[in-house]
Amino acid sequence: MSYELHYWPTIQGRGEFVRLALEAAGAPYMDVARGSDDAGQGLPALSRLLVDRALTEPPFAPPVLRDGKVVVAQTAAILQYLAPTLRLVARNEQARVWTLQIQLTIADLVSEAHDTHHPVGVELFYEDQKPEALRRAAQFCSARLPKYLQWFESIIVRNPAGPRHLVGGKLSYADLSLFQVVEGLRYAFPKAAERALARTPGVLRLHHRVAQQPRVAAYLRSARRIPFNEQGIFRRYPELDLV
Amino acid sequence: MSYELHYWPTIQGRGEFVRLALEAAGAPYMDVARGSDDAGQGLPALSRLLVDRALTEPPFAPPVLRDGKVVVAQTAAILQYLAPTLRLVARNEQARVWTLQIQLTIADLVSEAHDTHHPVGVELFYEDQKPEALRRAAQFCSARLPKYLQWFESIIVRNPAGPRHLVGGKLSYADLSLFQVVEGLRYAFPKAAERALARTPGVLRLHHRVAQQPRVAAYLRSARRIPFNEQGIFRRYPELDLV
Repeated sequence: MSYELHYWPTIQGRGEFVRLALEAAGAPYMDVARGSDDAGQGLPALSRLLVDRALTEPPFAPPVLRDGKVVVAQTAAILQYLAPTLRLVARNEQARVWTLQIQLTIADLVSEAHDTHHPVGVELFYEDQKPEALRRAAQFCSARLPKYLQWFESIIVRNPAGPRHLVGGKLSYADLSLFQVVEGLRYAFPKAAERALARTPGVLRLHHRVAQQPRVAAYLRSARRIPFNEQGIFRRYPELDLV
Repeated sequence: MSYELHYWPTIQGRGEFVRLALEAAGAPYMDVARGSDDAGQGLPALSRLLVDRALTEPPFAPPVLRDGKVVVAQTAAILQYLAPTLRLVARNEQARVWTLQIQLTIADLVSEAHDTHHPVGVELFYEDQKPEALRRAAQFCSARLPKYLQWFESIIVRNPAGPRHLVGGKLSYADLSLFQVVEGLRYAFPKAAERALARTPGVLRLHHRVAQQPRVAAYLRSARRIPFNEQGIFRRYPELDLV
């Protein structure tokens, strides 16, 4: 049976962490909002799901995963749900919690990256909060971004199973998410990201290894991978790439 | 054996969600940073933990829970780890994921409440970002706060086991966290919160029921409960309570 992913159809956004997990595992899924309205998909299907009063576990916001009767929202909860079936997390409880902890820290980094261009409010245009964005981006590029990358590096270096993965000796969804964050940081902050990544060789090698994973590599080459753009979380506004 | 909670000693903050779970379960714990430096506790102990190079699973930021050799950070991950032992979540995997999903949405609400007074950056004083705070708080009070509370209300109303709890027919950590958020919103935005809560009677009743739980009630009366203040996440700045 095929999973249904419900997410905004024109951006990578937070849905990309779920897409990458499904793709890396070779799991069948339908990216519903990217389908055609005529086939009962598209944005109308996403909108219907968000207001469906028959759901006893309603989503607050996309991304939403549907697996038969099970409906799960919140990126980290979706990954927590999917990962054992997709074999993208170790079986023991402590490794699952550690992987979740890393994912939640990645989510914090993603939120901070987003807030560089929307510090005052998501309901306003970037152009209406540019002075604040410059202040926020300066702090992000000089302090927060390097701090997060150093934390990932320390995990990789200290991993008792070796520096090939974040958790244990096998690919987990945390590796895929770190890959995605490095992609996003390089897109949005090419200069600041390269400067910080020069000090985190373990992160760079892990990123490279994930990109080479055959299913991930095939996905990245495919039309299913939406290019980064200036509607998503990671946006290339050169004035915010402060080194 | 006693749990160790490592969190900032003068605020409720995100650590309060962990404190409430431990207190409601009657679990023995030490609030380390609130102990005395002489006893090897206090803020120096928290600082040491954050830079301890011997940890293979290092925390990025407080709160941090230590349970013997296990060290877990990130509020939602700590609760995911603790809840089965504390009997604050159902045993089955789907209920655990649903409870996690609610907790993560509460965490999003908490972040948005925080950003009303610190939209531009946490490294700046509130006084240096007041115009932006007013814009952000207006949006929060009129749109976001009611939207979140309506979502909690819909979960309570639709709960197949009845409206006494968020998940199933028993107290879970999600109930405790919702209680805490209502407390915080009422402190920070007394007018806006009351107006929104008037439309969510199920949330109000659940909040009241949690407050009456004997261990929670005893905790709230004790000196262990730090009062809300203007260093935490929920701050009372009357100019931001916009109705």
